[in-house]
Amino acid sequence: RSIGPHAVSADDPLPSWNDTDTKTSITSFVQRVTDPDSTDFVEPALRIATFDNDGTLWSEQPFYFQLAFAFDRVKAMAPKHPDWKHTQPFQAVLEGDMKTVMAGGKESLLKIMATTHAGMTSAEFEALAYDWIQTAKHPKTGRLYKDMVYQPMLELLTYLRSNGFKTFIVSGGGIDFMRPWTMETYGIPPEQVVGSSIKTKYQLRDGKPAILRMSDIDFIDDKEGKPIGIHSHIGRRPIFAAGNSDGDWQMLQYATMDHSPSFGLIVHHTDADREWAYDRQSAIGKLDKALDDAPKQGWTVVDMKHDWKQIYPK
Amino acid sequence: RSIGPHAVSADDPLPSWNDTDTKTSITSFVQRVTDPDSTDFVEPALRIATFDNDGTLWSEQPFYFQLAFAFDRVKAMAPKHPDWKHTQPFQAVLEGDMKTVMAGGKESLLKIMATTHAGMTSAEFEALAYDWIQTAKHPKTGRLYKDMVYQPMLELLTYLRSNGFKTFIVSGGGIDFMRPWTMETYGIPPEQVVGSSIKTKYQLRDGKPAILRMSDIDFIDDKEGKPIGIHSHIGRRPIFAAGNSDGDWQMLQYATMDHSPSFGLIVHHTDADREWAYDRQSAIGKLDKALDDAPKQGWTVVDMKHDWKQIYPK
Ligand SMILES: [Ca+2]
Ligand SMILES: [Ca+2]
Repeated sequence: RSIGPHAVSADDPLPSWNDTDTKTSITSFVQRVTDPDSTDFVEPALRIATFDNDGTLWSEQPFYFQLAFAFDRVKAMAPKHPDWKHTQPFQAVLEGDMKTVMAGGKESLLKIMATTHAGMTSAEFEALAYDWIQTAKHPKTGRLYKDMVYQPMLELLTYLRSNGFKTFIVSGGGIDFMRPWTMETYGIPPEQVVGSSIKTKYQLRDGKPAILRMSDIDFIDDKEGKPIGIHSHIGRRPIFAAGNSDGDWQMLQYATMDHSPSFGLIVHHTDADREWAYDRQSAIGKLDKALDDAPKQGWTVVDMKHDWKQIYPK
Repeated sequence: RSIGPHAVSADDPLPSWNDTDTKTSITSFVQRVTDPDSTDFVEPALRIATFDNDGTLWSEQPFYFQLAFAFDRVKAMAPKHPDWKHTQPFQAVLEGDMKTVMAGGKESLLKIMATTHAGMTSAEFEALAYDWIQTAKHPKTGRLYKDMVYQPMLELLTYLRSNGFKTFIVSGGGIDFMRPWTMETYGIPPEQVVGSSIKTKYQLRDGKPAILRMSDIDFIDDKEGKPIGIHSHIGRRPIFAAGNSDGDWQMLQYATMDHSPSFGLIVHHTDADREWAYDRQSAIGKLDKALDDAPKQGWTVVDMKHDWKQIYPK
């Protein structure tokens, strides 16, 4: 089975979507903007679609998968850091004591991220991220993390591309963490991935050019950062944007408000049996203001439980 | 006449290049990396080509064309700033006294840039840049600035794209200054333009999303900044890079050192009759260290006078 770019069935480009209004709203939008006779026709060059990643293209519970990568890195690096056995937050990570890790709050997580994501070249980091994504499994589902992508969203990406859209990821996650595997997983090349970043430095090392990863944060691609990141990397407003949390609120505004034709999509996690159910109260992927705003702005809210025939690829 | 994406002649994809070793080195590289039977074959997805803009794709004398845009903006804004008549560096700009403007050095130029490039939305700025490029003419040649692009380089861009390359601009110039017109002029869409940037802010204004241009510098895409900008925007190393000054030295290293097959190209301004002749001593487009390094690194140096049949489009 391939979960890369899919062939789109001529009969039904979105076979994992139930035949609900949600699906119709998507296909009718795509038909309008691609029909040269429609007043809503949009030139192919302007068919920019941006997708949040965590919770929109793949799962994000019980915590962002990039954090699982960071924890696995702590474990792999531990033999060279014997002091971590009795230094928080590393001790808690090594003991699998997530409660203590999370209790340390933002400061603990930043320490873990700086330790595991910096102090190496970008090529070295990319290899670590790529290797991890090939083998790491989610503790609850037992699936590879990369197989916890949403089949309906893979179909949507392919459907949009086959209709002349250029698809981008615009995620709060680390840009360099995602880029090594987004092409294989989503059919999205590195140059179409926008994300958070740390500062880097260019250096010649023994005659070899290297990008060094520093521990300072450069850019947070979340909330107001998403329109900024889109402007910086893409340079035009999307006509299609998909997200799942208040972190995507501004991106959805930027794509759709005073910008017609356009389409806003919110993935609402309503399926506790097949995935997770959460929204307004969730620590991860909190969806509150954007959900209130959706009817006013005409954004389409995907009810995972009712709109999706299938969650993950078979 | 169109100076956008050109049709490539089957006989000769680079008709404005003389039949010299320079031309052969380019075509032989492209043949090798696109021939599936060659050991130098490169997958299309990895055929990334990056081009400096000023002095590489269009002229840059007697000063960067973006500066001419800034001076024209000062003139256009002057009626609302009566004090500029006796405030430097604006007074000198208004009086066309370039000597005094330049004598003010970096500080003066930064003041002019901040005044003319910030304090508006990105959409407003893009419209100003687009309008300017349609009509502004170079004082010496009388040509539109956008017609002072190099015909041989336009052919090279088209030739590379027709061989599966994705072409990017990586320029010290302002990313938002270039993006409005690079598609029409070079066939390069906004999302494939990397450049220097100022800080921006996202805001809803009367229910309309806007990116506000602040006056602080965000990123300088020059020298060490070029590999950083490439890493940030593209996420992979180019296999082809073209520049014309020491500002491109690190980009050329990044594309070619310890990275084979790859191609480095330097445009050497040697034609005082048809364009300008300058290199090691020039205030604009200084080419010194990269020129010394070229033979060691195997970079191809274009001798404009001898290698180019024609400079500008007819
Ligand atoms: Ca999300
Ligand atoms: Ca240059």
